[in-house]
Amino acid sequence: MHKIALLLLSFVLLESSAQVNVNDSIQIRKIYSEALSNSPSYTQLRYLCKKIGNRLSGSPQAAKAVAWGEIEMKKIADKVLMQEVMVPHWVRGPKEKATLIVDGKVNKALYVLALGGSVATPKAGITAEILAVDSLSHLKKLGEKVKGKIVFFRRPMDATLINTFDAYGDAGDQRRQGPSEAAKYGAVAVIVRSLGLAADNYPHTGMLSYLPDVPKIPAAAISTNTANDLDKLIAQGKKLALEISISSQMLPDEKSYNVVGEIKGSQYPEEIIVVGGHLDSWDVGEGAHDDGTGCVQSMEVLRIFKALGIKPKRTIRAVLFMNEENGVKGGEKYAELAKLNNEKNIAAIESDAGGHTPRGFDFSDSPENFKKWMPYFAPYDIKHFEKGYPGTDIHPLEPSGTVLIGFLPDSQRYFDYHHTDNDVFENVNKRELEMGSATIASLVYLLSEYGVK
Amino acid sequence: MHKIALLLLSFVLLESSAQVNVNDSIQIRKIYSEALSNSPSYTQLRYLCKKIGNRLSGSPQAAKAVAWGEIEMKKIADKVLMQEVMVPHWVRGPKEKATLIVDGKVNKALYVLALGGSVATPKAGITAEILAVDSLSHLKKLGEKVKGKIVFFRRPMDATLINTFDAYGDAGDQRRQGPSEAAKYGAVAVIVRSLGLAADNYPHTGMLSYLPDVPKIPAAAISTNTANDLDKLIAQGKKLALEISISSQMLPDEKSYNVVGEIKGSQYPEEIIVVGGHLDSWDVGEGAHDDGTGCVQSMEVLRIFKALGIKPKRTIRAVLFMNEENGVKGGEKYAELAKLNNEKNIAAIESDAGGHTPRGFDFSDSPENFKKWMPYFAPYDIKHFEKGYPGTDIHPLEPSGTVLIGFLPDSQRYFDYHHTDNDVFENVNKRELEMGSATIASLVYLLSEYGVK
Repeated sequence: MHKIALLLLSFVLLESSAQVNVNDSIQIRKIYSEALSNSPSYTQLRYLCKKIGNRLSGSPQAAKAVAWGEIEMKKIADKVLMQEVMVPHWVRGPKEKATLIVDGKVNKALYVLALGGSVATPKAGITAEILAVDSLSHLKKLGEKVKGKIVFFRRPMDATLINTFDAYGDAGDQRRQGPSEAAKYGAVAVIVRSLGLAADNYPHTGMLSYLPDVPKIPAAAISTNTANDLDKLIAQGKKLALEISISSQMLPDEKSYNVVGEIKGSQYPEEIIVVGGHLDSWDVGEGAHDDGTGCVQSMEVLRIFKALGIKPKRTIRAVLFMNEENGVKGGEKYAELAKLNNEKNIAAIESDAGGHTPRGFDFSDSPENFKKWMPYFAPYDIKHFEKGYPGTDIHPLEPSGTVLIGFLPDSQRYFDYHHTDNDVFENVNKRELEMGSATIASLVYLLSEYGVK
Repeated sequence: MHKIALLLLSFVLLESSAQVNVNDSIQIRKIYSEALSNSPSYTQLRYLCKKIGNRLSGSPQAAKAVAWGEIEMKKIADKVLMQEVMVPHWVRGPKEKATLIVDGKVNKALYVLALGGSVATPKAGITAEILAVDSLSHLKKLGEKVKGKIVFFRRPMDATLINTFDAYGDAGDQRRQGPSEAAKYGAVAVIVRSLGLAADNYPHTGMLSYLPDVPKIPAAAISTNTANDLDKLIAQGKKLALEISISSQMLPDEKSYNVVGEIKGSQYPEEIIVVGGHLDSWDVGEGAHDDGTGCVQSMEVLRIFKALGIKPKRTIRAVLFMNEENGVKGGEKYAELAKLNNEKNIAAIESDAGGHTPRGFDFSDSPENFKKWMPYFAPYDIKHFEKGYPGTDIHPLEPSGTVLIGFLPDSQRYFDYHHTDNDVFENVNKRELEMGSATIASLVYLLSEYGVK
């Protein structure tokens, strides 16, 4: 009875707007109820996190995740495609360690975590003075002083930015460009304050980007608490040095796959709507929010359509992309095959911002074209339809004119987990995950009914 | 530089609207930055949770919390008032236990948690057959069959409702009225499926409401997992009985206090804006989300005004109410004194829905009067200004014409913690807490500048 009352309320609310259709409003209410009542996503995510675990491209766990993804996808898709792709295979070494030296005396061990793609130190490690640097431009000013030093990129993320992804983008140059920029001036290694807003003991890994014509130097993250400790010692005038050992290596590329599940469109089968997340993760934690949640949400879209008997007018594809974290080879492969096959991917939605409460969508371009649909989402407090970054895996589709859309969950907690040992199943909330799936499925439903015109 | 860029952006965004004032927009941006950069709230909350702990009205910890509140309030208020109030003093007994009997054989111990206000069982406990009931109307239909039974109110919260407070309100009749309604038909005790949406092992306590002319029977919560187990056994046709012991008691009323901190208004000091949470909690967990967060957020409003040098035109009061959970004596006392002193409390905001990411406000009446302010909140993704329930402690101010406003955080996780051993400091996120404080302080700022006209 209560559900019917709610449906009736939706009628009343939505009939006052010229833009909305009552049947669509009811269908979307059914999508939310289905996701919140019958979703297997949380159980799937537990399996992926606990039975398979973290799954960096090229690892045995990544291969297991592909096999699992194929099995799960076959339960809900009419057709499953496996898109073969060669991916990089970087392996963290067993001997990551660092010792802090204060005023010439051994002080304590520091927990360091090599950045993704980092080269190893010599076997004996590297010992050098620590030089704290606030920014890439500060580094430039220091010039000659950088030579022979271990550069400590110390700038925290800006806590006053509301969307934490903005703060991440802002401070992230230190992790991405920092190692090569420091190497230009003769630095011997780099440590980076972790890209997180919480004061805690988790170092955050993530990709670095070496320049081609600059010596590759080893680089590692330290936790925000460790970075704060170093800041304090430096403020006290202490002279800091570090002994650091990293034994990571880049192995030959490995064969892997995107897992693609499809429901064929009934009226415009040639028009394809993609919804995806990435199956690979960093090699710490369990890849729960990054991006196990995006994978199970993408598959849940297909399941919801099947469970409710919705026959989409356009083709829907759930895609579990491989290798988002350190290469985007899966995303590039999907776009390459789409071009090769003359496919018309009209829209692509990526869920790669965590499994938190949904707030809306970021559109690569012209969100105003889709604001007519906002009234459908208002009953679920989904009110963010703005321009923004849609997602790394779908980005290669941009030249083909695909409308790119990023699913936007609440961002406040995301960087407490991102790329750390703390990105585990326990930190995902079942209802928040399911609310996200329903929100994505509702947009896919509208796209499948009306296209992108 | 970045902050200035953001301020400029606010200019551009807001100047396009006729309703907003650029100076106010800048002030609100400063409020958010202050809360996200310099707030002591998280540290205060840790102290309240870890050093004082849970604090049911009348308990020694509640007295400690009052003393702590007075000290903290004096740090930020111009004047601190202690409003004396007599509160009920219910005490959970040491011997809560239950044993499930299946088809006449002892099966296992069940974790039961007496509902707040429950009477004790006889010392030897009560043993009776379990009768599962879906609703109060189902109970009525069963009539004579209820006699001598332990009624098991089994109806889950409706997972399809988006705001979990709606689902709580809906299923909550079982906990509140269930015991007396069952007693009308001769039940000897009641167990209630916990008011939570997660499948877990935490029973949720909370107030029951005995009718005056019906025998008082003991009542306890069982976890959702335990309730699911019972449902399964019943579906299998098993005959269930329960042996239950509860040793709680109601002691004489105790003296306690509302803690009230004030900043006098510079232009209209007689017009008062209240912002409050409640200092008491249930006697399990640490009273973190319910309602330590509301207390520290209310005090944070005053601190932010002081830190930014804002001299409010109207008087602002932060109130730590006593006894929200089992009597509302503090809320009633505040309203009684306001009437006695001919105070003009123009608006009251309560934060008692958890410390999660802010979504907006629920107004007791006419949210349309305040929608002109929504553009100020849009940069923070605060977009909910609707009619709704404002809060239990401020409700007694209603007859005086006070505009009542409930702070609305995201509700998805709240009932994972509410009234359980799981409502601990660790489940509060620092940024979410601070975003909430900033949102409340921004509304208080606008109210203090423009009043409620």
